[in-house]
Amino acid sequence: MQTVHVHTTSHDYPIHIGAGILCDFSLFAPYIGKKIAIVTNETVAPLYLNQLTDLFKKNNIQYFTIILPDGEQYKNHDSLNQIYDALLTHHADRKTTLIALGGGVIGDMVGFAAATYQRGVPFIQIPTTLLSQVDSSVGGKTAINHPLGKNMIGAFYQPKLVMTDLNTLQTLPEKEFSAGMAEVIKYGLLGDLDFFVWIEQNIHEIMHQQPEKLTKIIAHCCQMKANIVAQDETEQGIRAHLNLGHTFGHAIETEMGYGNWLHGEAVAAGTVLACALSEQLGCLKNGDTARVAALFRAANLPDKPPKFPFNQWIAHMRHDKKVENGIMRFITLQKLGCAQISEISDMKLLDFLRNHNFSRF
Amino acid sequence: MQTVHVHTTSHDYPIHIGAGILCDFSLFAPYIGKKIAIVTNETVAPLYLNQLTDLFKKNNIQYFTIILPDGEQYKNHDSLNQIYDALLTHHADRKTTLIALGGGVIGDMVGFAAATYQRGVPFIQIPTTLLSQVDSSVGGKTAINHPLGKNMIGAFYQPKLVMTDLNTLQTLPEKEFSAGMAEVIKYGLLGDLDFFVWIEQNIHEIMHQQPEKLTKIIAHCCQMKANIVAQDETEQGIRAHLNLGHTFGHAIETEMGYGNWLHGEAVAAGTVLACALSEQLGCLKNGDTARVAALFRAANLPDKPPKFPFNQWIAHMRHDKKVENGIMRFITLQKLGCAQISEISDMKLLDFLRNHNFSRF
Ligand SMILES: NC(=O)c1ccc[n+]([C@@H]2O[C@H](COP(=O)([O-])OP(=O)(O)OC[C@H]3O[C@@H](n4cnc5c(N)ncnc54)[C@H](O)[C@@H]3O)[C@@H](O)[C@H]2O)c1
Ligand SMILES: NC(=O)c1ccc[n+]([C@@H]2O[C@H](COP(=O)([O-])OP(=O)(O)OC[C@H]3O[C@@H](n4cnc5c(N)ncnc54)[C@H](O)[C@@H]3O)[C@@H](O)[C@H]2O)c1
Ligand SMILES: [Zn+2]
Ligand SMILES: [Zn+2]
Repeated sequence: MQTVHVHTTSHDYPIHIGAGILCDFSLFAPYIGKKIAIVTNETVAPLYLNQLTDLFKKNNIQYFTIILPDGEQYKNHDSLNQIYDALLTHHADRKTTLIALGGGVIGDMVGFAAATYQRGVPFIQIPTTLLSQVDSSVGGKTAINHPLGKNMIGAFYQPKLVMTDLNTLQTLPEKEFSAGMAEVIKYGLLGDLDFFVWIEQNIHEIMHQQPEKLTKIIAHCCQMKANIVAQDETEQGIRAHLNLGHTFGHAIETEMGYGNWLHGEAVAAGTVLACALSEQLGCLKNGDTARVAALFRAANLPDKPPKFPFNQWIAHMRHDKKVENGIMRFITLQKLGCAQISEISDMKLLDFLRNHNFSRF
Repeated sequence: MQTVHVHTTSHDYPIHIGAGILCDFSLFAPYIGKKIAIVTNETVAPLYLNQLTDLFKKNNIQYFTIILPDGEQYKNHDSLNQIYDALLTHHADRKTTLIALGGGVIGDMVGFAAATYQRGVPFIQIPTTLLSQVDSSVGGKTAINHPLGKNMIGAFYQPKLVMTDLNTLQTLPEKEFSAGMAEVIKYGLLGDLDFFVWIEQNIHEIMHQQPEKLTKIIAHCCQMKANIVAQDETEQGIRAHLNLGHTFGHAIETEMGYGNWLHGEAVAAGTVLACALSEQLGCLKNGDTARVAALFRAANLPDKPPKFPFNQWIAHMRHDKKVENGIMRFITLQKLGCAQISEISDMKLLDFLRNHNFSRF
């Protein structure tokens, strides 16, 4: 087992990472009160819920469970209200601990419920997708969607504990594992060339979920995100680097209709575009983009965006937050392993997309 | 104008108190961005909204308004969602400032919307009831009600600025003004005998809303609450003293059906009961309770609870948070101006209620 310690303004918390750690009650013990509410979804419940409830039963911890429907479309107020209703029906008080057992959808939603139930109750994350293990377990962002916008309603709220059990990844659909790998590769590209090279060299074992490799990856990503977040709590500066590939990625997700391309798939293709843009800016060397594309392919990820009209690209990206008066801000690479913020005019972008979208990729 | 400075873990903020200060743009200027959303209700809007929008118009500040129905029964998710919808429709971003113009209902709800819209946007309070001016402008509690419980969903979130314009009290129904006075008198009783005596001596001018007296009262209450909250951010200890009269008060509110007795009216009667209990415990002197009751009467407040059966008292108070295994915790008085926490058994309480409810009061 490996542990990453995250420092936040309100408190510090550990992220434990290892195979089979969900059976270890001593890891939970310091963080739970008399009563627990476990929130999960219909897909994850049959896989891992019993294991957890058995553990609590054996240790005489009172618990109750809340099982939500599975899917991003349920990351909404109705599901949130289902959580509130259950908490109130079970007389949950301010010392009741909420556990999120599932991917990022469950994590974000339960985190928000914990932030707002009786103005805040303790919260433990058990992320069961690679994406949630490397991304949402650090940073304290919680949210639900609103019909008029994704993640529009939320709060910053930190967990007391994150338990990342690698064994849960064994049941994760391959596509979802790959989607998580897009974010992992992104971390290497934006801030750590050695890590990127290490992923290239170990991609085969990683894709076969070799436990030591997975532990290293997850711990490294969490540590990188924790460092970046600590440097930029207010999201003004360097934290934006985490959005490498995401402006293009969001455009792809929107164009294809949410859910048709997984977020990670869109991020992979978006990151290749960001690399190509960086090459055009004269930052990346000739061939760097191809090298990045090859790694995404090795992780079973798309290495190019779908084709769609220029004006759609612009329209979708305009809805992204990083737009100011005809100039869009993109995260690009100074070199592999080093991100920067670049301001790109619409004209330049059009030019770039015209050159690339329909030809090279 | 008088200013109270409140220190919180996230930032410090000023509470400006004075007559007519709503016309002074320079007081707002340091705290507002490019765009403002003013949230108010159907009662307050015709009274004070134009004054505010004129000020912003004159100073070229973009704003839009959200007018909610009036009443505690609308402090719910539907109203919250009306705020979210309007914010999204008007493309409010993280720099948009929310202004709550109204009493505690508007303040609590807009505060919660500000805490959760895009994970937190700046928030200004303009409390227009005496109760909200002396109570909810300090402490950072925001909330909405849930069908299964009052204030069950919320967050701790601090305003950037509180603007208390005494002139707004001129249109406040007398009953509502008196209700606010219950909390004012409560502050004196729980922590400051000199202030209590000063209220006794000035009750006539206060009830006629003499501006200097009102300024003193509001500033003093805000300062007292700020001191108490600062000593006890986590609500474990001394902050409980603010609940003087509230356990009995909640029972009265529940028994009478919410809204039939105003919260402040129930608190007044509840505080008289708490004094009588303190007398029975041998803490208050003979006659102290009568003195407190007289001051409430002078403020046009009830000085005794309605009559209802013992078992109803117990049942309603059990639903209060301060109950643990047959022992209830009450805020009582060691002496006038000095609160304490007392543990009272059900038997003792029954005895007390039997002796008092149907006879002395
Ligand atoms: N809070 C943050 O900082 C942050 C960061 C990134 C993403 N997010 C959010 O996370 C969400 C995406 O997270 P995600 O990719 O984990 O999606 P997800 O939670 O929808 O999980 C993907 C699918 O895998 C299933 N699943 C989860 N664990 C499984 C397991 N062990 N075995 C089998 N199936 C399993 C889920 O039920 C779901 O069908 C989005 O809503 C996004 O906004 C949040
Ligand atoms: N956040 C806190 O710390 C805190 C503390 C105490 C109470 N509260 C909450 O505050 C609420 C009660 O607040 P309240 O007593 O201000 O009630 P309120 O907001 O309902 O106001 C009372 C009535 O007066 C009207 N009104 C307000 N200002 C007026 C004015 N200037 N002229 C004429 N009419 C006016 C309102 O429209 C309403 O009809 C409750 O929901 C309670 O939970 C919160
Ligand atoms: Zn992402
Ligand atoms: Zn009160």
